[in-house]
Amino acid sequence: MNVKRPSGKPFAVGLDLGGTKILAAVLDEKYRILAREKKSTKPDLGPEAVVERVADCVNEALAACAVPHAAVCAVGVGIPGMVDTRAGMVKVAPNLGWKDFRFARLLQQHIHIPVVVVNDVQAGTMAVQQFGAGRKFTDFVCMFIGTGIGGGIVIGGRQYRGAAGMGGEIGHMAVIAHGGPKCGCGNRGCLEAVASRGAIVRRIIEEMSGGRKTVVRELCDGDTRRIRSRIIAEAYWEGDKLVREIIHEACDYIGIGAANLINILNPQAVILGGGLIEALGEKMLPRIRKAAWAHVIGASDERVNVLDNGLGDDAGVLGGALAARTLGK
Amino acid sequence: MNVKRPSGKPFAVGLDLGGTKILAAVLDEKYRILAREKKSTKPDLGPEAVVERVADCVNEALAACAVPHAAVCAVGVGIPGMVDTRAGMVKVAPNLGWKDFRFARLLQQHIHIPVVVVNDVQAGTMAVQQFGAGRKFTDFVCMFIGTGIGGGIVIGGRQYRGAAGMGGEIGHMAVIAHGGPKCGCGNRGCLEAVASRGAIVRRIIEEMSGGRKTVVRELCDGDTRRIRSRIIAEAYWEGDKLVREIIHEACDYIGIGAANLINILNPQAVILGGGLIEALGEKMLPRIRKAAWAHVIGASDERVNVLDNGLGDDAGVLGGALAARTLGK
Repeated sequence: MNVKRPSGKPFAVGLDLGGTKILAAVLDEKYRILAREKKSTKPDLGPEAVVERVADCVNEALAACAVPHAAVCAVGVGIPGMVDTRAGMVKVAPNLGWKDFRFARLLQQHIHIPVVVVNDVQAGTMAVQQFGAGRKFTDFVCMFIGTGIGGGIVIGGRQYRGAAGMGGEIGHMAVIAHGGPKCGCGNRGCLEAVASRGAIVRRIIEEMSGGRKTVVRELCDGDTRRIRSRIIAEAYWEGDKLVREIIHEACDYIGIGAANLINILNPQAVILGGGLIEALGEKMLPRIRKAAWAHVIGASDERVNVLDNGLGDDAGVLGGALAARTLGK
Repeated sequence: MNVKRPSGKPFAVGLDLGGTKILAAVLDEKYRILAREKKSTKPDLGPEAVVERVADCVNEALAACAVPHAAVCAVGVGIPGMVDTRAGMVKVAPNLGWKDFRFARLLQQHIHIPVVVVNDVQAGTMAVQQFGAGRKFTDFVCMFIGTGIGGGIVIGGRQYRGAAGMGGEIGHMAVIAHGGPKCGCGNRGCLEAVASRGAIVRRIIEEMSGGRKTVVRELCDGDTRRIRSRIIAEAYWEGDKLVREIIHEACDYIGIGAANLINILNPQAVILGGGLIEALGEKMLPRIRKAAWAHVIGASDERVNVLDNGLGDDAGVLGGALAARTLGK
């Protein structure tokens, strides 16, 4: 007797293409991660060079688990920007410096596997819904705290991106209406400008160059470009006063942003993710929750349900793999 | 030959029960308004007295168009607070000072017509969707600028109130995260605390008692309790410097609030209503639009579509009548 198998190929590659690093993973049909690969993105070298680095990352991950290219249904790539999934096109990705770039076709020429591009936050939200803390809910909001702050909104079990697919820009919610710090978008006082990892790093560097004492100076060997989530977390755990102060302030703002979303949308949960939350969630979440509680109308345990997404850095590659399976051919 | 008629009674009463005034209207099957009645609410006299005033309002409106009580299917009452429609109960209505009040039963005893209670913003949003600027859209957000600021979210043609029906509290979105003016909710810097008609009136009174020159002083005959939308609008049209300054600032904040909603939800339109917009929309809308434009990511004409709801003060009674027909027996 024959057991019927789904016609598709058994493996998928999920890829998280960030402004600083590329993460790739090979996953089997049950979304178990068989191998991972990681490279720095180096967007300054130009789009073609980045595509080559992405291709290398995919090839090396496949080699590491001895999965042949022909057994992969598709590579799903989460992009930090606006994409046209059908056309395989990156419309605009500020952190990569890309505009109207036919990414999917070019990558496909390198790896000979179908390529699916999706927005990274959308991919991450899919992963949180399928595999993370979102599994238990039909209505929730994801907040991804990274270089920027992205948001995924799930309503009635389906991701909601608004009338033109441009919703979820929660990082550009103004929380300091006048005179706040400058944001990458050109405005001032956006949540992203005061509470993203990018904003936190900027503040640390500012204070350092102002002569303020901090262990970050040694942890990054004087090279401020090396300040990432891990170094911030290390400084925090070592009790560094400056880092604690800045992180606590960011938590306040993230909590206020979460409260705004709760007041507007009344979700079952607000679910946090991103490198900083992975590294410091245990310390940050109680503070974020406290700030949210203070700003939610009719605050209650059910109403102020602020959680870690439970996937850490894997949200991106899992979401990419989901996109590869559901949107790939 | 008999023409089949729908079994229901041909008329409905829509009632808008605000903290300051009661508006009632009798509507026919085509939602044409046959008669209106208006009274001040006087919530200080206690809930029973308010119910009597509401009953008088209904009776007088019916008398004015000679519609017998027996021909009315139901009275739909929009309440500024949280209601349990099924139980006919007002759970909490801060502006009326009510808590767990069986309003529907009591009113029904006075008028002998079925009574349906709904949240006023929800009712207004229904009206905007059926009869106002919302007719053309499937995804939009209503902002009602009144004593407070309420919000109605329509997604895919259906009103969305969140997981526990408590969404839409857009007035309590923090736009000045730290140190803003105090809000009725206990927090600081809520949109409602800087941009509602209530906040505008408070600021005018403060400046007046600080000795600032304004025509409002004469327009209200020295009785600051009389300062409502109409007086504010009159002062604005007369070119009163103080009122213009305060209104323009409020427009900035409303625009920022609208931009936050656009960035988060990407609706087809943000649709404004409430007494102040009815009285001054022509002057306020361009300013609100300009502020929204400045704060929306990827602003475009389609994306920053900020409109007047087109129903003015009738949104409440129309919404009440819709609730009476759709939720009444």
